[in-house]
Amino acid sequence: MGVVTAPTEPKRTTLTPHTADHTDVRATNLAAVLGFLRANAPCSRAAIASGTGLNKATVTSIVGELIAQRLARETEQTQNHVGRPATLLVLDGSAYAAIGMEVGVRGLTAIAYDSAGGQLLRWHRSGPGPEASPAKTIAALAALARRAISAVHSSGRDVLGLTVGAPGLIDHDGSVVLAAGLGWRDVPLRSDLIAALGRPAFPVMVDNDANLGALAEHRYGDHAGTADLIQLSGETGVGAGVICDGRPLRGHHGYVGEIGHLRIQPDGPVCGCGRRGCLEAVAGMPAILARLEPADAPETDPQLRTEQLVRRAEEGDTATLKALAEVGGLLGRGISVLVDLLDPELVVLGGSYAGLGRWLVPAIEQELADGALVTVSGRCRVVVSTFGHDATSIGAVARSLDRLDSGRLPIPTL
Amino acid sequence: MGVVTAPTEPKRTTLTPHTADHTDVRATNLAAVLGFLRANAPCSRAAIASGTGLNKATVTSIVGELIAQRLARETEQTQNHVGRPATLLVLDGSAYAAIGMEVGVRGLTAIAYDSAGGQLLRWHRSGPGPEASPAKTIAALAALARRAISAVHSSGRDVLGLTVGAPGLIDHDGSVVLAAGLGWRDVPLRSDLIAALGRPAFPVMVDNDANLGALAEHRYGDHAGTADLIQLSGETGVGAGVICDGRPLRGHHGYVGEIGHLRIQPDGPVCGCGRRGCLEAVAGMPAILARLEPADAPETDPQLRTEQLVRRAEEGDTATLKALAEVGGLLGRGISVLVDLLDPELVVLGGSYAGLGRWLVPAIEQELADGALVTVSGRCRVVVSTFGHDATSIGAVARSLDRLDSGRLPIPTL
Repeated sequence: MGVVTAPTEPKRTTLTPHTADHTDVRATNLAAVLGFLRANAPCSRAAIASGTGLNKATVTSIVGELIAQRLARETEQTQNHVGRPATLLVLDGSAYAAIGMEVGVRGLTAIAYDSAGGQLLRWHRSGPGPEASPAKTIAALAALARRAISAVHSSGRDVLGLTVGAPGLIDHDGSVVLAAGLGWRDVPLRSDLIAALGRPAFPVMVDNDANLGALAEHRYGDHAGTADLIQLSGETGVGAGVICDGRPLRGHHGYVGEIGHLRIQPDGPVCGCGRRGCLEAVAGMPAILARLEPADAPETDPQLRTEQLVRRAEEGDTATLKALAEVGGLLGRGISVLVDLLDPELVVLGGSYAGLGRWLVPAIEQELADGALVTVSGRCRVVVSTFGHDATSIGAVARSLDRLDSGRLPIPTL
Repeated sequence: MGVVTAPTEPKRTTLTPHTADHTDVRATNLAAVLGFLRANAPCSRAAIASGTGLNKATVTSIVGELIAQRLARETEQTQNHVGRPATLLVLDGSAYAAIGMEVGVRGLTAIAYDSAGGQLLRWHRSGPGPEASPAKTIAALAALARRAISAVHSSGRDVLGLTVGAPGLIDHDGSVVLAAGLGWRDVPLRSDLIAALGRPAFPVMVDNDANLGALAEHRYGDHAGTADLIQLSGETGVGAGVICDGRPLRGHHGYVGEIGHLRIQPDGPVCGCGRRGCLEAVAGMPAILARLEPADAPETDPQLRTEQLVRRAEEGDTATLKALAEVGGLLGRGISVLVDLLDPELVVLGGSYAGLGRWLVPAIEQELADGALVTVSGRCRVVVSTFGHDATSIGAVARSLDRLDSGRLPIPTL
């Protein structure tokens, strides 16, 4: 067998690469200085330069900007090696706060943290429910946002950013394309909220609740820093937020992680989408609750119904335990697809699944061991979020802090 | 409805972020200079500084290094604005070449391109087949690699890197954990090849064939630059390579895109994994060929069998066209899962699927329209690769060039 060229293949005698966008050098350098300060403060400008590899002129310019924008400050401390004493710098967490909000089937939530990570406020209000118009819900959301903004200002801080999490398909413009749980379709949430807030100077962002939940776990959760993790949560629908290779995935429209309509049981119950046996039709919270309650159950609030379910499981009710094991197995089939396609180290159950986690996890792990590729499945762990229902709002705070950490300053510079 | 705090949630009064690794400032800056030169050469050091935002001292230092490593050179041209004339710089493609190889069921391939994108060689040899031991195949691969390295050296160039694509699960160390088509399990391909080549100074990498195919499409394909694309290819197995948000995805073990064992037809044929109706059991190339040939078909070479199949389809053979439409529908079910979870703009059919593309694509598109979420499916296009069977090798070349473009120089600097 000699070496031959293969004449049947199309030949590419020249490769012309697609040229990527220019790297934003200034933002990268800013991010490097902020990251170094976070890990090493108090430290001198010279230490930043040698630690980051940036030259001193660049560091001096960036530090000047951080001080001007009240993100860093000089301390009284100095350091004296050789020559004149060097002033030491620290991060300043007192000037800004990020606001994270959620609009969900359980109601509205607002949380704010200062840029050093200290909690300033945490509010929840029930309703408006799915029967309310989008306009009414956005008005209520804007009212809550205004109160949060006022509270941040009263504390002497500026708002770094306000991010809202919502369940469903959110496009890159922050419009809610489809949110079955809210009964919304094509609602320009971001632009309506910006208008209702009188076009604030800080960035207003909208993102999918599962994406934000994954970000919360990646940045602040019990397993923070895990480079490949998936947060799976379910209220009305089922959604996955994906961190892969250390980055949150978004996709072309911003729809990464839409697992709710994966066909799990071809002969299963009819889904809202018209097909049978979708993951959310067999393992969404409404499906779980419907399995265990008479159709005329008196309690309609989903949170109270979930609490009743947990109580029955804790009491060892056989039918409840059997149903949760079955649901765990079905959920496990969906998770095994996520694991095969996305190879996470960790799957975190969030939202209402977290409260049911101790009964769901064994069945999920069994399904992963049976169903995923032998070489992958055994190594993916399934854990329960400790954020409760705050994951989305905390992830929303993280979105604004992430912007800063990646070198985007509150007041953009040229 | 007043605003209330929700006492049942676990409170996080402080958020302590996971601190990311320090950004590699030097590599980022190098990448920025290389990218600017690629887009704008010939240009002066001053133009690079103003175009990238780097200060002049940094640009001078980086350009010095690029010249020392023969990646850029000064031209005779000068530019004269105000003051003394500025020497203009260009990229130098003459000093290095990248070698891309493939070990697959069709045989061994070696391709080399210089760093400016000009093809230097392109060789293919058939076998050794799956009946050969991994050691024998690696010896044949090393022999072909040595010939390619010699050819690169004879052209006066150094080798920038050598990357090998293989079908199956490849871990981060470049070991083949499982490759059913080759009959391999736990083969330390990368370390064995490095040893066989006498521990060369250039980087030797091993990656999954579908990952490399996706990289080839992203960097050099007809739709180069598409930020969210999936390359789906199949020979013995079926695999997907994923580019999401402009980056190739790898995952925790390096296994992103393992779609071959997605259950498509619960009552379908038995798969090599022991379960029924996996994607590769219903729509892998062996399954497609088996549908259309008597079990005692005289031809065993998969490429010749595929060519026979294409000929029958071109002649309008009814049974062949019906079978390809059915396979397209089944493949479409798998692709609809990829689309829901990963939200690509484009799915590229590669490998043997590319040759069958014009019969498969209509059925795939129909399944996407029916099966994926209404809001997503219609917008994802399915196209056919124009790389033929070269996609993996070209992607392997791209891996080495990518290393350079992201600022990793052939001779590492401190």
